Amino acid sequence: MSNKYSIGLDFGTNSVRALIVDVSSGEEVGTAVWDYAHGDAGVIMDSRYPDLARQHPLDYMTGTEVTIRKALSQAKSHHGFLSENVIGIGVDTTGSSPLPIDHNGTPLAFKADFENNPDALAWLWKDHTSHAEAAEITQRAAEMRPAYLAKCGGIYSSEWFWSKLLHCRRTAPDVFDASYTWVEIADWIPAFLTGNEIPEAMIRGICAAGHKAMFHSSWGGYPDETFLGSLDPDLVRLRRNLPDNAYPVSRSAGGLCRDWAHKLGLTAGIPVAVGAFDAHLGGVGSGIRAGTLVKIIGTSTCDMMVAPLTEPLPDIPGLCGIVPESILPGAYGLEAGQSAVGDIFNWFVNQIQPGGSETGSHEALTRRAEKLKPGESGLLNLDWQNGNRTILVDQRLTGMLLGLTLHTTPEEIYRALIESTAFGARIIMERFEAYGLKVDKIINCGGISVKNPMVMQIYADVMARPLEIARSAQTCALGAAVAASVVAGSAAGGHDRFETAMDQMTGVLEQKFLPNPRHAAVYDQLYALYKQLHNIFGTPDYQANLFAVMKKLLEIRDEIRSQ
Amino acid sequence: MSNKYSIGLDFGTNSVRALIVDVSSGEEVGTAVWDYAHGDAGVIMDSRYPDLARQHPLDYMTGTEVTIRKALSQAKSHHGFLSENVIGIGVDTTGSSPLPIDHNGTPLAFKADFENNPDALAWLWKDHTSHAEAAEITQRAAEMRPAYLAKCGGIYSSEWFWSKLLHCRRTAPDVFDASYTWVEIADWIPAFLTGNEIPEAMIRGICAAGHKAMFHSSWGGYPDETFLGSLDPDLVRLRRNLPDNAYPVSRSAGGLCRDWAHKLGLTAGIPVAVGAFDAHLGGVGSGIRAGTLVKIIGTSTCDMMVAPLTEPLPDIPGLCGIVPESILPGAYGLEAGQSAVGDIFNWFVNQIQPGGSETGSHEALTRRAEKLKPGESGLLNLDWQNGNRTILVDQRLTGMLLGLTLHTTPEEIYRALIESTAFGARIIMERFEAYGLKVDKIINCGGISVKNPMVMQIYADVMARPLEIARSAQTCALGAAVAASVVAGSAAGGHDRFETAMDQMTGVLEQKFLPNPRHAAVYDQLYALYKQLHNIFGTPDYQANLFAVMKKLLEIRDEIRSQ
Repeated sequence: MSNKYSIGLDFGTNSVRALIVDVSSGEEVGTAVWDYAHGDAGVIMDSRYPDLARQHPLDYMTGTEVTIRKALSQAKSHHGFLSENVIGIGVDTTGSSPLPIDHNGTPLAFKADFENNPDALAWLWKDHTSHAEAAEITQRAAEMRPAYLAKCGGIYSSEWFWSKLLHCRRTAPDVFDASYTWVEIADWIPAFLTGNEIPEAMIRGICAAGHKAMFHSSWGGYPDETFLGSLDPDLVRLRRNLPDNAYPVSRSAGGLCRDWAHKLGLTAGIPVAVGAFDAHLGGVGSGIRAGTLVKIIGTSTCDMMVAPLTEPLPDIPGLCGIVPESILPGAYGLEAGQSAVGDIFNWFVNQIQPGGSETGSHEALTRRAEKLKPGESGLLNLDWQNGNRTILVDQRLTGMLLGLTLHTTPEEIYRALIESTAFGARIIMERFEAYGLKVDKIINCGGISVKNPMVMQIYADVMARPLEIARSAQTCALGAAVAASVVAGSAAGGHDRFETAMDQMTGVLEQKFLPNPRHAAVYDQLYALYKQLHNIFGTPDYQANLFAVMKKLLEIRDEIRSQ
Repeated sequence: MSNKYSIGLDFGTNSVRALIVDVSSGEEVGTAVWDYAHGDAGVIMDSRYPDLARQHPLDYMTGTEVTIRKALSQAKSHHGFLSENVIGIGVDTTGSSPLPIDHNGTPLAFKADFENNPDALAWLWKDHTSHAEAAEITQRAAEMRPAYLAKCGGIYSSEWFWSKLLHCRRTAPDVFDASYTWVEIADWIPAFLTGNEIPEAMIRGICAAGHKAMFHSSWGGYPDETFLGSLDPDLVRLRRNLPDNAYPVSRSAGGLCRDWAHKLGLTAGIPVAVGAFDAHLGGVGSGIRAGTLVKIIGTSTCDMMVAPLTEPLPDIPGLCGIVPESILPGAYGLEAGQSAVGDIFNWFVNQIQPGGSETGSHEALTRRAEKLKPGESGLLNLDWQNGNRTILVDQRLTGMLLGLTLHTTPEEIYRALIESTAFGARIIMERFEAYGLKVDKIINCGGISVKNPMVMQIYADVMARPLEIARSAQTCALGAAVAASVVAGSAAGGHDRFETAMDQMTGVLEQKFLPNPRHAAVYDQLYALYKQLHNIFGTPDYQANLFAVMKKLLEIRDEIRSQ
C-alpha cells in the first residue's frame, strides 16, 4: 500500500503555511509559506485608530492556492508521493477573527459597496477597537449571566466575537446591517473549500465558538437573545442566524469542492476538517493527551491541557477557557496562558536597548546571562509587563523589578525577566494540578522553545520538571494535518482516533531539558518570594509583611556568590 | 580700609581646591585646583582588595602649596588685592579619613620603614575594607553602649574611624603598633599649617569626632576604654593618646607657622580654623541657619540642618548624626542623606546604557524626560539602589521599579529614577519637620543642582517648596573661607559671628525653582504610593494591602494622558 498524506493549513497573522505530512510516520514531505498581500504584512491598519487591525479575506483564498500548490510541487520530488494520496485537509487560524458575510456566505469585503471599507474586512484577533464594548459585555454578563463568564476566566475580551460585533453595530451600522451573519475565519476557510458557504450549510467549530463567543451546551449554545438584546436589540437578528451546534475538529466540514480541487490539483471530495485555532491544533501537533501540558512559547504563551469528558471537572478559576471538545473530541479543552513572554524579552532588547545594539542583542545577553547562577543577581521580576492572563485575569497589572543595585547589569535583568516568566509558568502548572489535573509530561513548542536553550533550562529548573520539545517546527500546521487524517478515517488510509494519529504523526525531540537539582532548590526559594509578591500585588485581599522579601533575596544572593 | 580676604581649602577625593574670598562681599577673587599626584586620581588602590582606598598625605601638603600660590597669583590681578590682606585660612576635607602618625605627629607614610606600605597612608572615607569590624562595633555597642549608636543613626559604618583602626590592628599590626595616634586629615592639615603637629598640641574638630568617632560630651568624649578594650585590648593605648576635647570650626587651630607662611607667601600668625568635613562647611557656604535645609546633591546627598543648642532636641530616629557644634558654634549640627542620587542616574546611563551611547546620554534622556508629565509613565521607583541612609538606615535594601509595561521607554525610567530620589528627599524633610525642625527655606548646592534644571524642578514639585541654589559653585571651600573669616575676627577685618559672615559672604542665585501646583498635586498622589512601598518594604512591622498600588498608578496615568 502506498503512503497516504494529509495537508495542514496554518493561517497566521502575517502569512499562511501549508504542510504535507505522511499520516503513518509524521514525515513532512512538503511545505510552503505565503506572505499575505494586503496591508502591512497582511494587517490592514488605520493611523486614526491605532487599535484597528483587519485582514482581507482574499488573502486566505490566494494563500490557500499558492501554498498548497507549492507544497505539492515540493512533495512531488519526494520518493513515492502522489497528490492523489492526499486524503484530507485540516485548517487552523488565528482567532477570534470574525468576518461579516451576506446571506450567500460572500464576505462583504468582496462586494463593490464595501470594497474599500475596513469594517467589512476580517477583524483580526489583535484588533482592540472594541475595548469599551468588552467592558460592557463583561459587566452585563456579571449582572445577568455570571455563568457565561465562569467559562472564559471572568472577563470578556476586546479581542472576542461579540465585542467586535457590538462595536461594528455602533460605529459602522452600514456594515452591520448588510451582514447576514459573522463567521470566524477558522470556519469560513473550510466553508469555501467545501463549497458550503451558505450560512445555513456552514459548519462552525466549537473551538472558536466555545472560547470566544460564549457558546456552551449547558445554556443552549450561543448567548440567549435576552442577554444580547440588552446589549443592543439588533444583535438579536444576528443571534437568530447562528446555528444551534458547533463541532470539534474530528468532524468533517464537507468534501473538497470540485472547483477548489481543480485549483489545488487535489482529489475532489476529500474531507476538510472543521477549523480550529492555531494554538489548539498546535497542542494536537505536539501530541497532547490527558496528563500532558503543552506550552506554546512565543511572544506570549498558550498553556493547554485536556481532560476526559467522562470525569467531573470543576470550574478552574483564572483559566482562559474550559470548552468541551475544543482541542480533542471526547475531552475538555483547557486553555491558560501568559500575556507576555518573548514580548517582555523583546521589550528589553528593542525598547530599552541595553548597551546599544552590539552588546544588547538577544544573543549577546543570552551569552552573558547563562553564565549567571540562579539567585546571584538578587533580582526578582513580576512578569506583568502586559498584564496577567492566567491565573489573575487582570490586564491592569504591571511589571515590577525588585532588587536593583548600582551594580545591576543588563544581563542580570535579562535573566530575571526570563526567570519571572518561568515563575509565571509554574503558577499555571500548579493551578492545573490544584484542581486535579496532574501534569506528568510537559511538551513545549513555539519559537522560543527551539531558539533559546537557556530559557528552556531555566524553565526546567524553575518548574522542577523535565521539559520536552515537540519534534515538528510547525506544530499548528501538523495538528491541522492530524485532524485531516482523522476526518479522512482509516478506510481512506488515515486514522479513526486522534490518539492513533498523534502516536504516528507527532513526537518529541531526543533532547530533553532536565532540572538541575541544585538550581531547582534555589529557584524554590525565589519562587516562594515571587508568589508572595504575586499574591499581594495581584489579589485584593492578601495582606503581608514584605520587609523580609528584599532581605531574603540578598541572603540568597550572598550565599550563592560565596559558593 | 582695604578689603580683607580669607582662604578656604577644600580637600576632595581626587583634588584640592583653594578659594580666596572677599570677607565683606563674598566675591571670589582667586581659585585654583590641583589633582593629587599619587595613585589613580589621588586614590591608591590594591587589585587584591577591591574595597581598599588610600591617599598619600604628601598630596595634601603639595596641594596646599600649589593651589594657594596659584590662587594668590590669580587674585593679584584683581584690583586692590594684596596677599597681606589675607586674614585667615579654613580647611575642609573628606572623612572619615584617618591617618596614622607617630609621637612627633609625623605620618608613618613619611618614614622609610613604611614608605611603600599602603596601610601607613591615609585611609580614605570610601575605603570599605573594615566592614567586618564595623558590624562587630555596631553589635558590641548595641550590647554595651546603645547610647553610642543613638547619635549616629543606629549603625556604625565601615567608613568610620574606629572600624578602620580596628581593621588595621588585625591586618597590619606593624603599622598599628608604630602609630602613636590616628588623626583625621581634617585635623592633620590645620596641624601642619600651624606647626602644632605634636599629638598633644594638635586640635581635633568636633565634626569628625562627633559624627565618625563616637565622641560626645555626655559620655566624656571618645568611647570609654572598657568598650574599646572589649573590641581589642590594644585600642586602649590609642584611646589614651586621644584628647578630652574636640572643637567647632569657630575655634582657631593656631596661627600659620613661619615655615608655611613663607612657602605660601602669606603672613605668619594668621589663624587657621579647626578643620571640618566638606559637606558641613558646604552647609556654611550655602548660608545654613535654623529653619534652612541645605541639600548637597551629587552622587549621593547630604541634607543638613542646625538647631540652637539652647533648645531641647530629641534624638531623631534615622538621622546620620546629631552633634553639638559640628556645623556651627552654638547649634546642633544635624546630618541626613540619601545613599545614592546621581549614582542611580549614572548607573542607568553607564551600566544599563539604554539605547546605546547616542540616545542614552544624560543630556538626551533629560531632553526626552522633561517632555513627560508627572504620572503619565505609570512608573514608581524605590530609590534604594545603594541602600537607604536616611530614614531607614539600612544598606540591605534594594531598588524596585514598579509599573513596567511593554511600552515603557528609557526616558520614562530615567524620569522615574529622578522622581524617586525626590520622594526620598521629601521623606527626609518630613522627618526633620516631624521632630520639630520646621523647614522654611531649602538651599541646594552640588553638581546636580546647577547642572540639571529638570531635576531641580522635579524636586520642587515633589517637595512642594521653592528651591534655591547656592550662589557659589564652591560652597565647601567658601564655607571654609567663612570659618577662616570668623576665627580671624572683626579686629582683623573679619567677622565675630558666623551669622554675619554668612550674610556677607554667601548667597543664592536669583533663579528659584517654584513648585508647579498642578504637578505638585499629582506628585502628592504618587508620593502617597511611594510612602506605602517605602514603609512595607523598609520597616519590619508594617502590613498593607498593595493590590491598589498598581491600579492607582494606572488610574493616575490614564487621567494624565487623557488631559
